[in-house]
Amino acid sequence: MPTVHSITYQLLRRQGLNTVFGNPGSNELPFLKRFPEDFRYVLGLHEGVVVGMADGYSLATGQPVLVNLHAAAGTGNAMGALTNAWYSHSPLVITAGQQARSMIGVEAMLANVDASTLPRPLVKWSYEPACAEDVPRTLSQAIHMANLPARGPVYVSIPYDDWDHEVEGDAAQVVQHDVSYAGLPSAAQLEALAENLNQAHSPVLVLGPEVDAVRANSLAVELSERLCMPVWVAPSASRCPFPTRHACFRGVLPAAISGISDKLDGHDLILVIGAPVFRYHQYAPGRYLPQGAKLLHLTGDVQEAARAPVGDALVGDIHATLEALLPLLAQSDRVLPNPLPLPPPQAVSSGRLAPESVFDSLNALAPEDAIYVKESTSTVTAFWQRVEMRHPGSYFFPAAGGLGFGLPAAVGVQLAQPDRQVIAVIGDGSANYAISALWSAAQYNVPVVFIILKNDTYGALRWFSRLLDAEDAPGLDVPGLDFCELARGYGVEAVRTETLESFEDALCRALDASRPILLEVPTTTIEP
Amino acid sequence: MPTVHSITYQLLRRQGLNTVFGNPGSNELPFLKRFPEDFRYVLGLHEGVVVGMADGYSLATGQPVLVNLHAAAGTGNAMGALTNAWYSHSPLVITAGQQARSMIGVEAMLANVDASTLPRPLVKWSYEPACAEDVPRTLSQAIHMANLPARGPVYVSIPYDDWDHEVEGDAAQVVQHDVSYAGLPSAAQLEALAENLNQAHSPVLVLGPEVDAVRANSLAVELSERLCMPVWVAPSASRCPFPTRHACFRGVLPAAISGISDKLDGHDLILVIGAPVFRYHQYAPGRYLPQGAKLLHLTGDVQEAARAPVGDALVGDIHATLEALLPLLAQSDRVLPNPLPLPPPQAVSSGRLAPESVFDSLNALAPEDAIYVKESTSTVTAFWQRVEMRHPGSYFFPAAGGLGFGLPAAVGVQLAQPDRQVIAVIGDGSANYAISALWSAAQYNVPVVFIILKNDTYGALRWFSRLLDAEDAPGLDVPGLDFCELARGYGVEAVRTETLESFEDALCRALDASRPILLEVPTTTIEP
Repeated sequence: MPTVHSITYQLLRRQGLNTVFGNPGSNELPFLKRFPEDFRYVLGLHEGVVVGMADGYSLATGQPVLVNLHAAAGTGNAMGALTNAWYSHSPLVITAGQQARSMIGVEAMLANVDASTLPRPLVKWSYEPACAEDVPRTLSQAIHMANLPARGPVYVSIPYDDWDHEVEGDAAQVVQHDVSYAGLPSAAQLEALAENLNQAHSPVLVLGPEVDAVRANSLAVELSERLCMPVWVAPSASRCPFPTRHACFRGVLPAAISGISDKLDGHDLILVIGAPVFRYHQYAPGRYLPQGAKLLHLTGDVQEAARAPVGDALVGDIHATLEALLPLLAQSDRVLPNPLPLPPPQAVSSGRLAPESVFDSLNALAPEDAIYVKESTSTVTAFWQRVEMRHPGSYFFPAAGGLGFGLPAAVGVQLAQPDRQVIAVIGDGSANYAISALWSAAQYNVPVVFIILKNDTYGALRWFSRLLDAEDAPGLDVPGLDFCELARGYGVEAVRTETLESFEDALCRALDASRPILLEVPTTTIEP
Repeated sequence: MPTVHSITYQLLRRQGLNTVFGNPGSNELPFLKRFPEDFRYVLGLHEGVVVGMADGYSLATGQPVLVNLHAAAGTGNAMGALTNAWYSHSPLVITAGQQARSMIGVEAMLANVDASTLPRPLVKWSYEPACAEDVPRTLSQAIHMANLPARGPVYVSIPYDDWDHEVEGDAAQVVQHDVSYAGLPSAAQLEALAENLNQAHSPVLVLGPEVDAVRANSLAVELSERLCMPVWVAPSASRCPFPTRHACFRGVLPAAISGISDKLDGHDLILVIGAPVFRYHQYAPGRYLPQGAKLLHLTGDVQEAARAPVGDALVGDIHATLEALLPLLAQSDRVLPNPLPLPPPQAVSSGRLAPESVFDSLNALAPEDAIYVKESTSTVTAFWQRVEMRHPGSYFFPAAGGLGFGLPAAVGVQLAQPDRQVIAVIGDGSANYAISALWSAAQYNVPVVFIILKNDTYGALRWFSRLLDAEDAPGLDVPGLDFCELARGYGVEAVRTETLESFEDALCRALDASRPILLEVPTTTIEP
């Protein structure tokens, strides 16, 4: 007779969740025993690393991925990483082992008391099935919930004595259960949208991470060229939805109310696609929009649509909507914007390298389809200016700003995309939040090039401390770190490069290698 | 006029919360600016480390301690560590910075959406004050809530624009607000307890971590000698409540239902003090108690009392209850138990050292009042047998079994107890969950001796995989780690010792040093 264990593996196989990112404890062993040969287990040494790797893998594949954590402590360790997965709409199907059912109430060691509350509010859905027979159906629900828009992480707690339970009757039918989603606007909705765009005198396009997630990048290019309109990336960009050297590209909007209305001043129509309206950061009150501007908002996320303070939102399938919209749009007779001027190469002086120099070198030497996983907040502006990104899925930044994403996400992205080179650009403050991801890179021979920009301080925080008149706050500096030693401790080859020449030399060797390599680069501190 | 900032620091000063463990982000800067000179800030590079250090500090001082985390991501990172703080009843007053009030609803970057839900169910109380004026009173409530029995962590989310808010009227009076707690049993309750004990033929005492927490260790000794009864430590011991070479000491109870009733067989009265009844771990069903035995339970924790499946519980102040009870107890004419035989010294062979040898050396060479912070589950039994512990506050183990406690807690304990030597005994699996605690040890020159028992596997999990017939599970081994490199990367001197001689030599030098030193010791794998 089939068991919870056997039906679950059938379900995972059919739904394509054959890669499991995990960190095991005793509660998880009955799930992991007889682990099938067509499944792959990727071990992380901390649950923040596990979720970070899974997040990167899911971001790069666009598919749900299974995560297996240990009870309450393991779930708790992962929750910082869930802040990013929530805002990047990553469909992580997170399972955690629970104590044996009769040992939960008495709070035996490793019982996950009130398990379904624990991951909230950072998951879409959270559940502990009330009996063993309901485990396969619960996991099916979890996969579908994670994958339906707006996608996001879900959580299932499973008592460890459930796995060998035999299941009678129709329970195995859940393996065949499918759910799909209809998100095409009506003809009237499309016509109204087209009319607004055709009649606008000076439209502007603002693109968010969802455009890259649904691979609507080339549709966005077509749209911008059809209407000859400038294109901005929505603030606090976690992905790159548009080729950054295209004539229409204007850069990333600032993450402040007044900054955005300044940059968009003069436009009568603002079309925002696949982003919140807006993901502010600094507090700089002012007008939400320039005077006289109308905002239209296309999103797959009901919450983004509902919480926005301005604009007319349409919630649906972005990709399908753009495909249906384009034939309704007339070619504009406006002239295309002039491309942004390229920044001059950063002058190299003695002393620490400027991050701009590092980025100039990356732009010159890295493959044209390299994927950048970035977690260095203070260098974001310089990076977008200097490193050209051409293809979908070329850039990933922690979507909630939660540190500890970069190192493990780079490993996960590289596992998902073995044919493209992943380059992780990580700050020396950031790198400590998930340093043991280097171990997984070494053990599974994941050939990421890790670049640590080492300026001995939390750079973005230093900048904020000036904005907030708090430069005397304690805890802003991180001296005394040696990332070459740390990398070697986790089995990753490492080299410190203090000149541009030695950096470029080491970078070329790292790009040619088929193993992970870390470059520590002492740099100056710049502002975001 | 006083501000939220000025009143808060008055409150913290008056309540003795002058040490702040933290990891800052932009939302926290307005709290940290103008940081007073009589306060100390201890930076950790990951929030699990921050809470681990604070937990150790609070465990060693017995006092509430302030923790300052960054928004949702920082809180999330800390939540694994909260599982331990919850079960160790550590009064951590955790504050997190929140976005500016007008930026929360729109979910600006670093907004902690639904902040008070986030840390549940791992805190006693969680709140975000509804207006700036209520911040000082909320913090006062938080401190008192954390400190009232059963103690435990609490959480307050504070919008960053609240700190400069001027507060009118009587708000500053909360600085003077005090709360104390009455927990003495009535005369009738005491007499009933005494009568049960005086009339028992074969009583046995089971002591939990709360006995050590309230420093009732010597009262427990007196009680055991008065009634000439054997003393067990309650299962899954997170502290040492009784001197381990006392004649009455029997060891630590196994963490299984049937194992406990086997060990306590023959006793007619079981007195459990300061522990849950019981903190089981392995699933081994059977009788809760030996036939004919009655169980009396003294605890300060209403939840421990309420959830126990057997026994008569009295919830109150353990220390005061024992002081009042002792004069009512007659000296028994039973003979004292024979002391446990000492284990023979571990034979040393070639190859990897046995953990038992390491513990024999520690017992011989460490100061008699050393404090052990232990996070190596597979060696627990051997450690209790071989390392004598004499004094209150000599042993700390993760109370929920959540890994990542040991390294940072050792730093926190040593900061709190500069006059006693802290020795951290950590497994090579465990050490990765909070490895950056070594950086804090180096930066603040906290002279812990860190001993990493390196057997290249999750040892306790290997044992469980045999119990659960899951030896083929993936992810159980952790090869390729070099803790000497990792330690140096974080600025801590390190040495690998492969023979007993070199270990003892390095240990003596480390004990004489006034700086942190890490010893990596390759060992065999043993069973818990």
